[in-house]
Amino acid sequence: LSSAEEILVNHNGTILPAGEATVPAMDHGFLYGDSVYETLRTFHGRLFLIEPHLDRLLRSLEQISLALPAPREELRRAVERTVGVFRERHPGCDLSLRLVVTRGIGPIGLDITLCDQPRYLIYAFALPRLPAEYYAQGIRVVVSRVRRNHPSALDPRIKSGNFLNNILAYQDARRTGAHEALLLSADGYVAEGTTSNVFLVRGGGIQTPSAFGILDGITRQVILEEARSAGLPVEEGRIPAERLLECDEAFITSSVRGVVPVTRINDSVVGDGEPGPVTQRVMQIYDARVARECGA
Amino acid sequence: LSSAEEILVNHNGTILPAGEATVPAMDHGFLYGDSVYETLRTFHGRLFLIEPHLDRLLRSLEQISLALPAPREELRRAVERTVGVFRERHPGCDLSLRLVVTRGIGPIGLDITLCDQPRYLIYAFALPRLPAEYYAQGIRVVVSRVRRNHPSALDPRIKSGNFLNNILAYQDARRTGAHEALLLSADGYVAEGTTSNVFLVRGGGIQTPSAFGILDGITRQVILEEARSAGLPVEEGRIPAERLLECDEAFITSSVRGVVPVTRINDSVVGDGEPGPVTQRVMQIYDARVARECGA
Repeated sequence: LSSAEEILVNHNGTILPAGEATVPAMDHGFLYGDSVYETLRTFHGRLFLIEPHLDRLLRSLEQISLALPAPREELRRAVERTVGVFRERHPGCDLSLRLVVTRGIGPIGLDITLCDQPRYLIYAFALPRLPAEYYAQGIRVVVSRVRRNHPSALDPRIKSGNFLNNILAYQDARRTGAHEALLLSADGYVAEGTTSNVFLVRGGGIQTPSAFGILDGITRQVILEEARSAGLPVEEGRIPAERLLECDEAFITSSVRGVVPVTRINDSVVGDGEPGPVTQRVMQIYDARVARECGA
Repeated sequence: LSSAEEILVNHNGTILPAGEATVPAMDHGFLYGDSVYETLRTFHGRLFLIEPHLDRLLRSLEQISLALPAPREELRRAVERTVGVFRERHPGCDLSLRLVVTRGIGPIGLDITLCDQPRYLIYAFALPRLPAEYYAQGIRVVVSRVRRNHPSALDPRIKSGNFLNNILAYQDARRTGAHEALLLSADGYVAEGTTSNVFLVRGGGIQTPSAFGILDGITRQVILEEARSAGLPVEEGRIPAERLLECDEAFITSSVRGVVPVTRINDSVVGDGEPGPVTQRVMQIYDARVARECGA
């Protein structure tokens, strides 16, 4: 890995280059994907929305009966320390972080009560930036043939290390050169992207799938808050798949990418094919929130 | 770990005690549960049904677009060598094996085409034996509140490292002291156990869920073959959940446990509460198949 691609991993307090960082072969995160995680980023070296991310991590942990490997405050300091070490080596570099809590080692088998040493890993790497034209001109997304996990099987609210559903869906994007794949729910409503939430604009109003059967993104929450404060009409609800092809504007949100206009869905042009006025307004209010929290 | 509990791990050809075996923190098997596996066992030191297990491994690999890390023949020899090394250290010991193929290292993200070095790990450990009374008197199973993954999201035919669905379901068994939890499909039909297939007996006929929306177990296949050759009436189909409480006999099958009678489902007694005649006949024909392939 070149220096620009360096990844550091803080494994239970020990920070190593990713190439030297390992997990035990008996870790249930490896054997079963039995882990949860958060993805977050810095602006100007400051962690953006760390508290909501930690809140959600705790909810994910509770949903799979996994204990915190360290007190919340200690975990937050570990993230901050990892940012500090990374930025000493890469001054001025903004970064993305993946905070993983894994079940830890235990006998092969499904009895999680035999695993009593959860552990954390914090991956830190230079923020992967989308090309500027993605924000200026919009991206293309496709609707995947893969449906989102049903909440009765594995609730998408749990941000877990079971990610094959999303990986399989993403293949449909990659195959066709699209930036992201959208998944529908088992019953055919719009759910979310593989690593993003999706919003549509119709008649000036913003619509997004309600927070059932999807991961309730931190950026999604911020956009809903900020749009409402700005007086933009916002609605959460069930969105039939057909509506994807009948909207005036569309955008996706994620912690790493922020707000990205969508100007093509499958082979259809969205609106006039340019990022629309509501999307641009949402990008502005997101930037304003970032500036308020992390400085301009 | 005591010697009796020793686990050996063959990682791409290097055999180590499990406590010393690691995987890279950047392995996508750890990051995303992006791996597939097989569980198999020996009888008298001989691998039982290794070829059907390798066939299925190849099918799982294909379904997630993952390449074999070594030619099939080499993988089979690696399994055999692992058995040999384990049995040198534990003479006369029958063992269970877990053969994992994982995506290997790659950048954080869902583009699997950037991961081009899949790897294998073979875990070998003394066969975990169920208490003899489980076979003599039968076990209790419960129907989990957790539903099986829908095939449109993540097909249960893929024997993958995404196992949270099963782990969450197994909690319902553990909480109530049952041996196994059964999962229903999203639409309420009997699917399978967390690590087993399920069979019911009604009016002398054997019924099992058809191989859609479940893992098509190797032992399940063997039981279907052997029961048909023995002239037992066998039917694969959709089994409504209610039928679990209306059967005369029931049993589960798995590669590690073979055929295990089920004499209680939730709080209901199955039949007269003893392993029934059809179940006992199935246990015999399974033992006969083992004897034919691995010696008596």
